[in-house]
Amino acid sequence: MQKKLQGVLPPVVTPFDHNEDLDLAAFKANLARWNRTGLSGYLVVGSNGESVFLSEKERDQLLAASREAAAPDKIIMAGTGAESTRATIQQTRRAAELGADCALVITPHYFKGQMTPARLADHYRRVADDSPLPILVYNFPQATGLNLAAEAVARMAEHPNVAGIKDSSGNIAQLSELLRLCPKDFAVFVGNAAVFFPALCLGAAGGILAAANVIPERCVELQQAFQAGDLTQARDLQWRLVSLAVMVTVTHGVGGLKAAMAMNGYQPGVVRSPLAMPDEAAGSAIKEELRRLGY
Amino acid sequence: MQKKLQGVLPPVVTPFDHNEDLDLAAFKANLARWNRTGLSGYLVVGSNGESVFLSEKERDQLLAASREAAAPDKIIMAGTGAESTRATIQQTRRAAELGADCALVITPHYFKGQMTPARLADHYRRVADDSPLPILVYNFPQATGLNLAAEAVARMAEHPNVAGIKDSSGNIAQLSELLRLCPKDFAVFVGNAAVFFPALCLGAAGGILAAANVIPERCVELQQAFQAGDLTQARDLQWRLVSLAVMVTVTHGVGGLKAAMAMNGYQPGVVRSPLAMPDEAAGSAIKEELRRLGY
Amino acid sequence: MQKKLQGVLPPVVTPFDHNEDLDLAAFKANLARWNRTGLSGYLVVGSNGESVFLSEKERDQLLAASREAAAPDKIIMAGTGAESTRATIQQTRRAAELGADCALVITPHYFKGQMTPARLADHYRRVADDSPLPILVYNFPQATGLNLAAEAVARMAEHPNVAGIKDSSGNIAQLSELLRLCPKDFAVFVGNAAVFFPALCLGAAGGILAAANVIPERCVELQQAFQAGDLTQARDLQWRLVSLAVMVTVTHGVGGLKAAMAMNGYQPGVVRSPLAMPDEAAGSAIKEELRRLGY
Amino acid sequence: MQKKLQGVLPPVVTPFDHNEDLDLAAFKANLARWNRTGLSGYLVVGSNGESVFLSEKERDQLLAASREAAAPDKIIMAGTGAESTRATIQQTRRAAELGADCALVITPHYFKGQMTPARLADHYRRVADDSPLPILVYNFPQATGLNLAAEAVARMAEHPNVAGIKDSSGNIAQLSELLRLCPKDFAVFVGNAAVFFPALCLGAAGGILAAANVIPERCVELQQAFQAGDLTQARDLQWRLVSLAVMVTVTHGVGGLKAAMAMNGYQPGVVRSPLAMPDEAAGSAIKEELRRLGY
Repeated sequence: MQKKLQGVLPPVVTPFDHNEDLDLAAFKANLARWNRTGLSGYLVVGSNGESVFLSEKERDQLLAASREAAAPDKIIMAGTGAESTRATIQQTRRAAELGADCALVITPHYFKGQMTPARLADHYRRVADDSPLPILVYNFPQATGLNLAAEAVARMAEHPNVAGIKDSSGNIAQLSELLRLCPKDFAVFVGNAAVFFPALCLGAAGGILAAANVIPERCVELQQAFQAGDLTQARDLQWRLVSLAVMVTVTHGVGGLKAAMAMNGYQPGVVRSPLAMPDEAAGSAIKEELRRLGY
Repeated sequence: MQKKLQGVLPPVVTPFDHNEDLDLAAFKANLARWNRTGLSGYLVVGSNGESVFLSEKERDQLLAASREAAAPDKIIMAGTGAESTRATIQQTRRAAELGADCALVITPHYFKGQMTPARLADHYRRVADDSPLPILVYNFPQATGLNLAAEAVARMAEHPNVAGIKDSSGNIAQLSELLRLCPKDFAVFVGNAAVFFPALCLGAAGGILAAANVIPERCVELQQAFQAGDLTQARDLQWRLVSLAVMVTVTHGVGGLKAAMAMNGYQPGVVRSPLAMPDEAAGSAIKEELRRLGY
Repeated sequence: MQKKLQGVLPPVVTPFDHNEDLDLAAFKANLARWNRTGLSGYLVVGSNGESVFLSEKERDQLLAASREAAAPDKIIMAGTGAESTRATIQQTRRAAELGADCALVITPHYFKGQMTPARLADHYRRVADDSPLPILVYNFPQATGLNLAAEAVARMAEHPNVAGIKDSSGNIAQLSELLRLCPKDFAVFVGNAAVFFPALCLGAAGGILAAANVIPERCVELQQAFQAGDLTQARDLQWRLVSLAVMVTVTHGVGGLKAAMAMNGYQPGVVRSPLAMPDEAAGSAIKEELRRLGY
Repeated sequence: MQKKLQGVLPPVVTPFDHNEDLDLAAFKANLARWNRTGLSGYLVVGSNGESVFLSEKERDQLLAASREAAAPDKIIMAGTGAESTRATIQQTRRAAELGADCALVITPHYFKGQMTPARLADHYRRVADDSPLPILVYNFPQATGLNLAAEAVARMAEHPNVAGIKDSSGNIAQLSELLRLCPKDFAVFVGNAAVFFPALCLGAAGGILAAANVIPERCVELQQAFQAGDLTQARDLQWRLVSLAVMVTVTHGVGGLKAAMAMNGYQPGVVRSPLAMPDEAAGSAIKEELRRLGY
């Protein structure tokens, strides 16, 4: 993979129409608009892409469409983690066939009591061995109930085909250890906007941020300000991002994220049940927040 | 459904051969042996059946095989829960076509922060409306990170097509509330042997117990002793069950369960990665425990 | 100690007047009324006695008053646990001087990360060695953030001066292990009414129940029905107790407990800040619940 | 209070001799040595000062000794929080009489289920009203099981006598919100070294760091490097601090902290039971870590 793993990527949403069927045209329209921003690329069929609701065929359609619609310089990162090692390998190979640049592999977690560090190390080693693509480890304790300690990730980072991590824990002490223990070229992305700026201060490569579906330019500006040494502006942008970020992730989830995108001119469609779109009050709160941010 | 929802059911394991491929012959052989016990029926493609590792085709094969191999009076309960409402309905319909008697539907949980009581109530209502089979709600907080409160279940129990619950929380105070609030004919099963006897004291209909894969007779005897009013014998059987039960669920998981089954003459095969079979020390501990129980 | 450690004990509340000062007359009046019930005794200066708010002098006054006001056959159990081993020993000796029959010792917990099983075992051994009274271990994870596993308690039970345990965890699987592993004469009390009946089924000696401050007779009747082999009546009493119990412990805490006692003719006074008495709506809910129970 | 609330303060340990009795001479000797560093002041009778083990008289002795031994420009911050509002006020007044500059007030937490935001707000308002000293709120969820949300702290910050907060949660997203919502002159200290550098990037006033008992100069240098705009050096110092900090807080607790201090020439004495000094292996690990840091 020659594209540099850094910068801001949105975990792109999967648009569904009012029958909850896949809307590929809307998906491509969103990518066309994002292509004109400073985003480094796209995470496709990830958590915010409602991957757990997608059939095998739908996953294939989305990966193919992303390769087709994305500007050539944008990274296509495919979410390919499954509960079994064999299914994870199959999905990663399929993503490679469909043109993805790298794969994001979440920790298997249904049998969380059995997922010892040794079992997880073995899982990632086998996936990395058999994957035609560089893989990134995905640590998301809030969804999985499992956390990968910094030492465990550092050992995984020794494999030549493990290129980085998306850490959505929000645990900055752990992120700090991670950055201290891993090689310089191991790409550490944070997965929540609420800690984006402090993560950059510690040396993170970038962020895979739900909010970047809605306001990609602001997220990119924050990293640029930091890189230019303007801590004050970076911190101010951080503070302006946080409340929107919390709203479209923790509080209202993917439904809130899709509502905010629609308000900002994107074509996100609706969510699949049992998720739901925000009710009127929540919708107004999101609109108000976007207005406060100058949209 | 005319079979009475009560008694002991094992959540039957799915045998895999040494390539981790499905071994249907072994699956049927186990059912043939269990048919000669006092078990009320079988939970197929449930958690202990490693359902999260199964393809659609494998699920179909297992359900068809269970209908074929089970004695006619045994209940076939199919695990059909998925993350999306639409996939849950599809799998439940498919289980009906393949001859299942009822369906067990786990709470969707990947987006746990969004799974409010209202969202879950709506999910179960829609599944119950569209299901050709009676459904049972499945509460398994240790795996899902979500708990269904007694009041929420009591409201679900009002739906004519919601026939019962499998509660694996181990929370007896909550189970007590559940039994108090739900109609008498609502079938309350507990999902862990560690609380089987106290649950019976409170009025539970039975147990869906991993240990019943290994020692079905002992589990059935416990319930029979209780029903005959022999609290002392029931309590003694409970104490003899508990340490084995903890070993084959919490400590060594499905791998431990399969190892114990093999020691007791069943054909469980191995587990799929990233799960693993117990190492030698753990295997010896399980063997010792079985010996202590008189096997 | 010759009184048998079994039956129902209320963790008696500490009455404060409207200046939040100790009201010893009210305290004695409550004991005088409880003396006429089937309660086995009283837990004084325990959690529900707001012991964490009491000065050394107030503790002494309450222990002396309880010895004076309690009927001679009632057990006086004194809460004497402190964070340091030395303060725990001092308070236990002082309780002995003031006439207590036994002492209840909560796990030290402020430094919870350091309270390994070995540290706790050592703490209890030293307290038991130096205590003139038999001690009971107190496991209350909801307040302390620490849990004592069944094996750890079983080892403590080997000490001749460790006479029993109050377990408020509500974890029935653990209680079952505890009863299996400890000697027959080790007195196991549960600390929450929500699991009182199932705990009796498993062989518990009794309950130390907040609700017994309000409706002591019902709690005693439950245990008597169980001992007479009338499971149905015991279960029915359990169901009638549970919602009141939840209200005066989990939902409204000591403030709710004191409000319910006042409604039932006791003299509980008010709580100390930052605790608060229930507001009007909560007060009405408690009154309604008492009415439903026939008071 | 005229001294500026900023910079690095150690939560000073309380030396005990081998009978576990207070050693005031050792306490003063440590302060004398720290007086020659760039530390801003001292937190006395805080968590790391084993305040939960101290008698009223010992608290008074330590506060008087700290006023006597501290250089005049050093801040004396006294830990004065207790479970009841009345005891907290009494201890805060006493600290003022003994010459403290400000008071640190931990959230009451034994009755954590009852400590609603409204109850806590009322507690802090009453303490702030009655305190002769400016107070700082202390948020320490790991010990208390309670967390103060950023919005709740922002409302407390409106009181003219609430001067700041010590936040030991390690939650940087929350700290970021706190800094966004509170007035510029509200002094936000972090309570764990693991997030010191990112907290400074976000605008924190300083740190109250256990590690500053051992290596005060390094902690002060980190903040100075940050203030001089040298992010790279600040980050490097952070990385050098983290593993020591984890060792003397999370892993080995106050016992580990005292061992490390002794190795570095201070006079910390031993801990009170049930805490313990590290065993030989742990002691060697700490020594090795100090050596790695250049001591």
